Amino acid sequence: MSAPAAAPGQRSGADLLCESLLAQGVDHCFANPGTSEMHFVAALDRQPRMRCVLGLAEGVVTGMADGYARMAERPACTLLHTGPGLANGLANVHNARRAFTPMVNVVGDHATHHAASDAPLAADVEGLARPMSHWVARSSGADTLGELAAEAVQRARTPPGCIATLILPADHAWGAAQAAAPAARAVPSPLPPQPAALARAAAALQRGPGTLLLLAGAALRAEGLELAARIAAATGARLLAQQANARVERGLGRVMIDRVPYVVDKALALLKDTRAAVLVGAKAPVGFFAYPGRPSSMLPADCEVIAAAQPEDDGVQALRELAAALGTVPAPPREWLAERRELPLPGGALTAAAVAQAVVARLPEGAIVCDESVSSGREFFPMSWHAAPHDYLQLTGGAIGLGLPLATGAAIGAPGRKVVSLQADGSAMYTLPALWTQARERLDLVTVIFANRRYAILHGEYVATGAGQPGANARRMFDFDDPAPDWVALARGMGVEGARADSAERFADVLGAALARRGPFVIEAVI
Amino acid sequence: MSAPAAAPGQRSGADLLCESLLAQGVDHCFANPGTSEMHFVAALDRQPRMRCVLGLAEGVVTGMADGYARMAERPACTLLHTGPGLANGLANVHNARRAFTPMVNVVGDHATHHAASDAPLAADVEGLARPMSHWVARSSGADTLGELAAEAVQRARTPPGCIATLILPADHAWGAAQAAAPAARAVPSPLPPQPAALARAAAALQRGPGTLLLLAGAALRAEGLELAARIAAATGARLLAQQANARVERGLGRVMIDRVPYVVDKALALLKDTRAAVLVGAKAPVGFFAYPGRPSSMLPADCEVIAAAQPEDDGVQALRELAAALGTVPAPPREWLAERRELPLPGGALTAAAVAQAVVARLPEGAIVCDESVSSGREFFPMSWHAAPHDYLQLTGGAIGLGLPLATGAAIGAPGRKVVSLQADGSAMYTLPALWTQARERLDLVTVIFANRRYAILHGEYVATGAGQPGANARRMFDFDDPAPDWVALARGMGVEGARADSAERFADVLGAALARRGPFVIEAVI
Repeated sequence: MSAPAAAPGQRSGADLLCESLLAQGVDHCFANPGTSEMHFVAALDRQPRMRCVLGLAEGVVTGMADGYARMAERPACTLLHTGPGLANGLANVHNARRAFTPMVNVVGDHATHHAASDAPLAADVEGLARPMSHWVARSSGADTLGELAAEAVQRARTPPGCIATLILPADHAWGAAQAAAPAARAVPSPLPPQPAALARAAAALQRGPGTLLLLAGAALRAEGLELAARIAAATGARLLAQQANARVERGLGRVMIDRVPYVVDKALALLKDTRAAVLVGAKAPVGFFAYPGRPSSMLPADCEVIAAAQPEDDGVQALRELAAALGTVPAPPREWLAERRELPLPGGALTAAAVAQAVVARLPEGAIVCDESVSSGREFFPMSWHAAPHDYLQLTGGAIGLGLPLATGAAIGAPGRKVVSLQADGSAMYTLPALWTQARERLDLVTVIFANRRYAILHGEYVATGAGQPGANARRMFDFDDPAPDWVALARGMGVEGARADSAERFADVLGAALARRGPFVIEAVI
Repeated sequence: MSAPAAAPGQRSGADLLCESLLAQGVDHCFANPGTSEMHFVAALDRQPRMRCVLGLAEGVVTGMADGYARMAERPACTLLHTGPGLANGLANVHNARRAFTPMVNVVGDHATHHAASDAPLAADVEGLARPMSHWVARSSGADTLGELAAEAVQRARTPPGCIATLILPADHAWGAAQAAAPAARAVPSPLPPQPAALARAAAALQRGPGTLLLLAGAALRAEGLELAARIAAATGARLLAQQANARVERGLGRVMIDRVPYVVDKALALLKDTRAAVLVGAKAPVGFFAYPGRPSSMLPADCEVIAAAQPEDDGVQALRELAAALGTVPAPPREWLAERRELPLPGGALTAAAVAQAVVARLPEGAIVCDESVSSGREFFPMSWHAAPHDYLQLTGGAIGLGLPLATGAAIGAPGRKVVSLQADGSAMYTLPALWTQARERLDLVTVIFANRRYAILHGEYVATGAGQPGANARRMFDFDDPAPDWVALARGMGVEGARADSAERFADVLGAALARRGPFVIEAVI
């Protein structure tokens, strides 16, 4: 027989968990609950300070939590239903892990006495959580949930940002709790950079050309970029960002930085003369995939690799100390900063480049650009150096289906800023119900679907991996033009207005109108 | 540097894998490939006997493989892309595991030399696979893939049906292979029932009332049901099916069997006088969830539990031997068999019961009914005893999002039979792109969406778990009527025709028209 629930009016373990999350500064809960989470939902009812955002599938929930935290700079919690609910959300947890996004996952599970019954939904929740989490814990009773939640938040906020997964058996949520919620814990600081590593980095940078200064993480915000540009300009080192990044500050007045190319042969060609790589929050660049006859590392075999700052270190401080040690000029040279350039609106046939051009021309100041455009959006990055100042959020873990929820979460994490979501059509299929949350929450967000009706990247990868030319079976795996999805209908089905554009002029017009209004809007860009 | 690929024209490990799957009788591949699977896709191109079916998200892929195997009675293979691709498909693998569906998952992974690089998509594939698989193996080289595939198929076909997951590093797929594909292995037979267990079961059944004969698995097909009905009629034992079942043969002329109720208090009341439970392929009934103050087991504490046949045993043979031992009559009594009854078409307001009534009245002979209607469809089961003969496939693992892909796979596994998919709206959101595959494959399938615009079951569960009455936050987690999804638009967006019905007459008309035509159709039943 099961443990009794807290009496009406009595405080439950779930209440304690909620109080503790709020005390630690977590006040957004992205949720898709089930029966085992009903008492947590009841606790949310008693805690109006906790903003609850429903996602109609768990991949939406975890992707929103990622986007939220990238902009709000603190973790949200997710609420997921047992092992299968967690499993549905894992791909976007993977992406968040690769972005070093702080995230607290609360995963409900069967009551402890029910575990032996192997009920239909029973699964190895820990086993599912571990591959994508930095920290996994199961509560040991209602009264332990305050401390456990505080620890989860602290773990999530441990630099560079971690995934903490807390498993909540239903009877701990419904049991009576007497313990007080712990006071707010200190947010862990990034580690100071190591002097020896900085000295090696400074020496390599002083050798100038042939040295790569590779940035990731916080170093890609305005201050870090300015410091890095001063160093690169003074030494002649090459400045690059890693291939995929959680958040970059870009546009007018900001330091222009390119990324390591995705295409392996381009990356190898660009980096072939690199003799030393100084990493600030970045990892030494490797191929996104392996290809026959190609190396894993994008750096030459004899390249010296120096981590001036590991991802958990204070990368901006490392750059400050490097700049001081190298005696650079006090500001980046003008030619490193994006200046105003009039980009005309595109005309003629609608291409991926025309879409990028129109978005750059129309981008509002302070916009947040979320990019899961995969192969179609490669032109946006170099084109948008001179766009209005904006934040640029990217798919970091390669698991498609992040874009729509990432943009949704970013809009919730940064109210008052316009979000532009650049979205490949194949990837959009994975987490389509994110559009519904955009409508429910009245978010100010324009989604551009690059509708090429195919996994365009796979056509290229098929050839790149030496598989030859796609035949009939392969094309049936790569192309989804029969039937072609109707993105305007899909958006309407989710309660979001939309329009289709099949010329550059029409796209620019629709985009202008969509950006001028408030609320979510979807544009199907037929390219 | 990576291993070279097989030269053009040379046979690859992926070719060997495909040849071996075909030799073992696996000729359907449900797929959502990525870069690491390009050589497997190339091999599929050279094997036109392998039917490739694209799903636009991995939950669709694994759910289709489940539906296919339930009807075709042999496993399909799935093709999934690295750890995150597998993760997206795991919830429906969980459901398949709970249905004892045979399934071979081929999960591509990075090339072996690339693993040390911790590239963005790298994840612990084995760790993700194990919680939902009965067997997990990673290939050790291109030439091993023939034997490994044969073993995977044999494991999948080991009674009662297992999940076999084969991890395929890209370099093993692209490497040259000389080994021959192994010959077809024998399909493992179910184990013979144990005489001692049968003797105990026979003794308990002879005690008549107070003994429960609980069926699952193959015992729920026509022959098993007839044997069980003869036994129950002769002994006075109570005959029931377990709560959720992979496949039941039902309708006109077939034995009418009820299920253990989902609602715990109803199950406890029904079974309170049970003194012995004889299980044939079933597990002793437990609560789907735990509730405060309620037991886990649905049987009285002192009830004797006798497994006449474990799930891996030959349940039909067990029933044959029990019938012989008990000396029953040669055919089930007429009152146990469903007879023709004219069910009128419903009129008036459209309710869940009216939907069920119209479906029963209109159901074509030989239809396959796939049921993920959750709370809305509870009336269909008792109403449909007297419907035309049909197969009834159900969500077995409780992980919502199975219904649309299950129906899609069932239509592929049983061509020529009409599929009727009874689908809750909340659950349909999880794997919506299954509709696209229905359109692409021109499947003969009618989907009925129970559009109540809420997780209706959670309203009940909230109260049942003693959480009180839902407040503002809870209702925002349970209801998705703001905005209400437009299922006709969503279907159209996926390339499937649809219509909305908000009266019983209109629903019956639209259903009749949809069943009379060929091809996929979606009906939004606003209840």
